[in-house]
Amino acid sequence: MDSRHPVPGVPLSVLAARTGAELVASEKNAGAIVIDRVATLDGADSGAIAFLSNPKYRSRLASTRASAVIVSVADAEATPLPKLVTKDPYAAYARIAAMFNPPPAVVPGVHPTAAIASSASVAASALIGPHVAIGERAAIGERAQIHAGCVIGDDCNIGEDCVLHPRVVMYARSVIGPRSIVHSGVVIGADGFGMAEHEGRWLKIPQLGRVVIGADVEIGANTTIDRGALGDTVIEDDVKLDNLIQIGHNCRIGAHTAIAGCAGIAGSTRIGRNCKIGGAAMINGHIEIADGTIVSAASGIAESITDPGVYTGAFPSLPHRDWKHMVSVMRQLRALVQRVRALERRHEGEG
Amino acid sequence: MDSRHPVPGVPLSVLAARTGAELVASEKNAGAIVIDRVATLDGADSGAIAFLSNPKYRSRLASTRASAVIVSVADAEATPLPKLVTKDPYAAYARIAAMFNPPPAVVPGVHPTAAIASSASVAASALIGPHVAIGERAAIGERAQIHAGCVIGDDCNIGEDCVLHPRVVMYARSVIGPRSIVHSGVVIGADGFGMAEHEGRWLKIPQLGRVVIGADVEIGANTTIDRGALGDTVIEDDVKLDNLIQIGHNCRIGAHTAIAGCAGIAGSTRIGRNCKIGGAAMINGHIEIADGTIVSAASGIAESITDPGVYTGAFPSLPHRDWKHMVSVMRQLRALVQRVRALERRHEGEG
Amino acid sequence: MDSRHPVPGVPLSVLAARTGAELVASEKNAGAIVIDRVATLDGADSGAIAFLSNPKYRSRLASTRASAVIVSVADAEATPLPKLVTKDPYAAYARIAAMFNPPPAVVPGVHPTAAIASSASVAASALIGPHVAIGERAAIGERAQIHAGCVIGDDCNIGEDCVLHPRVVMYARSVIGPRSIVHSGVVIGADGFGMAEHEGRWLKIPQLGRVVIGADVEIGANTTIDRGALGDTVIEDDVKLDNLIQIGHNCRIGAHTAIAGCAGIAGSTRIGRNCKIGGAAMINGHIEIADGTIVSAASGIAESITDPGVYTGAFPSLPHRDWKHMVSVMRQLRALVQRVRALERRHEGEG
Repeated sequence: MDSRHPVPGVPLSVLAARTGAELVASEKNAGAIVIDRVATLDGADSGAIAFLSNPKYRSRLASTRASAVIVSVADAEATPLPKLVTKDPYAAYARIAAMFNPPPAVVPGVHPTAAIASSASVAASALIGPHVAIGERAAIGERAQIHAGCVIGDDCNIGEDCVLHPRVVMYARSVIGPRSIVHSGVVIGADGFGMAEHEGRWLKIPQLGRVVIGADVEIGANTTIDRGALGDTVIEDDVKLDNLIQIGHNCRIGAHTAIAGCAGIAGSTRIGRNCKIGGAAMINGHIEIADGTIVSAASGIAESITDPGVYTGAFPSLPHRDWKHMVSVMRQLRALVQRVRALERRHEGEG
Repeated sequence: MDSRHPVPGVPLSVLAARTGAELVASEKNAGAIVIDRVATLDGADSGAIAFLSNPKYRSRLASTRASAVIVSVADAEATPLPKLVTKDPYAAYARIAAMFNPPPAVVPGVHPTAAIASSASVAASALIGPHVAIGERAAIGERAQIHAGCVIGDDCNIGEDCVLHPRVVMYARSVIGPRSIVHSGVVIGADGFGMAEHEGRWLKIPQLGRVVIGADVEIGANTTIDRGALGDTVIEDDVKLDNLIQIGHNCRIGAHTAIAGCAGIAGSTRIGRNCKIGGAAMINGHIEIADGTIVSAASGIAESITDPGVYTGAFPSLPHRDWKHMVSVMRQLRALVQRVRALERRHEGEG
Repeated sequence: MDSRHPVPGVPLSVLAARTGAELVASEKNAGAIVIDRVATLDGADSGAIAFLSNPKYRSRLASTRASAVIVSVADAEATPLPKLVTKDPYAAYARIAAMFNPPPAVVPGVHPTAAIASSASVAASALIGPHVAIGERAAIGERAQIHAGCVIGDDCNIGEDCVLHPRVVMYARSVIGPRSIVHSGVVIGADGFGMAEHEGRWLKIPQLGRVVIGADVEIGANTTIDRGALGDTVIEDDVKLDNLIQIGHNCRIGAHTAIAGCAGIAGSTRIGRNCKIGGAAMINGHIEIADGTIVSAASGIAESITDPGVYTGAFPSLPHRDWKHMVSVMRQLRALVQRVRALERRHEGEG
């Protein structure tokens, strides 16, 4: 339940030094300009620094009232404003935005309404919010924040400096590494979808593995990660998951991979390192996706990918009437192939 | 945790007056028929009023045992029952159903297990349920209902007559206008999915904006709406969101737009007013959808729509064998185009 | 917040008897081999029994260090290890895994932080966890487990031996039959998405029905099931729902049907018995799916299915450049058909 506390202003020269960017300005004293906040090109005014990263917004450089801007080398000529020139304006912006908006100070302690098992171990520097429940033998690391309504199962382990926003659930034996952030409504370690069909009924397969999450992971709101059936479900370091994602049992998501919202990864699939999976992409179970693969939004991946690259499978949207025509013609495709073949035969006969 | 309390019966003539419908009946005293509940055509019996809105169910008019029915002018001849004839039977039904099923009376007050920050302001007429947590400086309006397990962050503002069902989370500084309804599991204001790639690692972009929700909005269970990165994410008045929808950071959803379940709207997209977005539709980021646009279920929209109309992009489902054939032929399409071109050339040569 | 408590070892002959499998081994005393746990073929060592069900993993039979394996008749020759041979290895595995991993013993009782309405009825053998809220006249059956943070509305009915994992919400009047399992974050009985358009505004349709869930149902994390508008939404016995599924109002899901993660079923649709619906499949509203139908992952079903079989509608994913070409050719399909027709006419003219 944080509120950001803005910090005092910082000279532009200091921002340049902190980000490794080059300060470029026509005025001599531009390095002394005091910046005290970040803003969009459109929303900025005096005292603010804005950035241009998406070329779609380049035209806004001309009209911005920012005191300075962060731009790439390619865009450096496009504005007379004092500027930080860097090969990666978005990363520089990230650092400056973080400087001006440090996370709120946390007052350690356990809220009196929390229900903590006697055998649990909670670091003295941790924050435990209202109505939190923590199970037997669970361990909460230094400076970890477990916000209101979280439920931490028996034998869970939460690393130092983790932040669990309100109403996260971790089932028993789940593990999460240091500095990870988990947003509200996330469910970690629920049973995987495993059952055997037997004489017209479903037999439940006990889900005996764990969920093991690395360091510096961020997990978006209402995402679900199922525990392994026998082995573990593993989310490696620096993985970033958006909202409403489903990760099936026994998956492994490689380090530094990012997955956008509404995606689904079926069970026992391994996604490599440094992959980018688009929103609402659906990845089949029991397959492997090579390191560095990019899957476009709304694409379904049915088979393993061994050759990294960009993969796409979305149906193009059209005005409804055009779509109906296209689908209608698609249904005639086999007949069309035969008609072309017949024409070819006729030509061959003639030839 | 409401239970509906049905109200006493009402004469049919009063229902006609309240809805502006025309009462049509062969019997003279039909206006005095007492109605005390709504029902489906199939489920109705004496005392109930049913309605016909979806033409798919017209055949059920003949067999219903309802005391009266609500029908359109087009269907008025289709039944001899006493009827309310109106150009919009579904709206008339909505009004009558609400009359017979008023929301349960709410007893204001704060449950003793709620944890409310000392600087929060809670209207005396509001209801605060068990295990609710409310942060510093948050304001809860008159007659608002904050049900069990909700977590309201610092500096949030909840309008009068809002209903937050159990286990809603609002992160700090989120705003919601009067008479809005938020269903269980909704997460408002979690961080947007923003990070910059830098030297093989992800740098988190601080998410500094808010979520600002208008009046008369309804949000379905487990839907997530991310806070803006710099500006705000805005949901305008009278927007209706179904369950399990993802709204990315910095989106704006125009007034009176309805979005069905499992849809996803990627970040920085603006959806116009009076749009209808079908279930599981996926809308790309950084685009604009014109006022009045209709997107069919399961369709992906990759680019801006400036011309309102119906847009569709779903792959047709087929028996699996037929689907395999269609996909196989689709993969030969480029070759087919070349074969047709070859035939054409041959003809041109001959011609 | 369970932790599994492994049980002592069991001779292989007893496992054979309990599962109805045939014990096949070259050594005489193989029946006396003591097994004390289940494992994957890769992860097993002495004392463990592993299984082969998915033929994809057959090569692992050669290298496993398991003390015994469970295999089908077809795979019986593929390993010299002591083995249980059965027509359904996965079901036999399910039984053995459950034997070795019984659910943790439950200590009945009501946590002091729970808020239980005075008119609710809670069986003495039930477990009510921390921060649970239970409404008026709700009934909780024998040995039911209602874990931390669950919210049970007025007049709900929860059958005996049900397990509600942390943070489940059941709205008023919802019913769930015996032995059902509901995972964290599930929302049962929220209002369906019903509204009537009237003079540019939305009128809410009161959602007056219930959700009625049968026996032996399992519902995955963060899945949502809306209450009926007038009649009930019904989930029949032995239905298995994975995570993040949306079930619209007035749906009926037939007995023994399984639905994988991220699927959506729009309102008023009836899905038959013994169906299998793949992950992220989207089923239109107001349709019927025949008993025994199989819908492939990521497929959209727009119309009723009366003839059971496998139905598929997913767009094939391709390297992005190939996909662009395919889509580009698809957009020319109508013109292509006309070109082929022109060629045919020409031939007819010539013929």
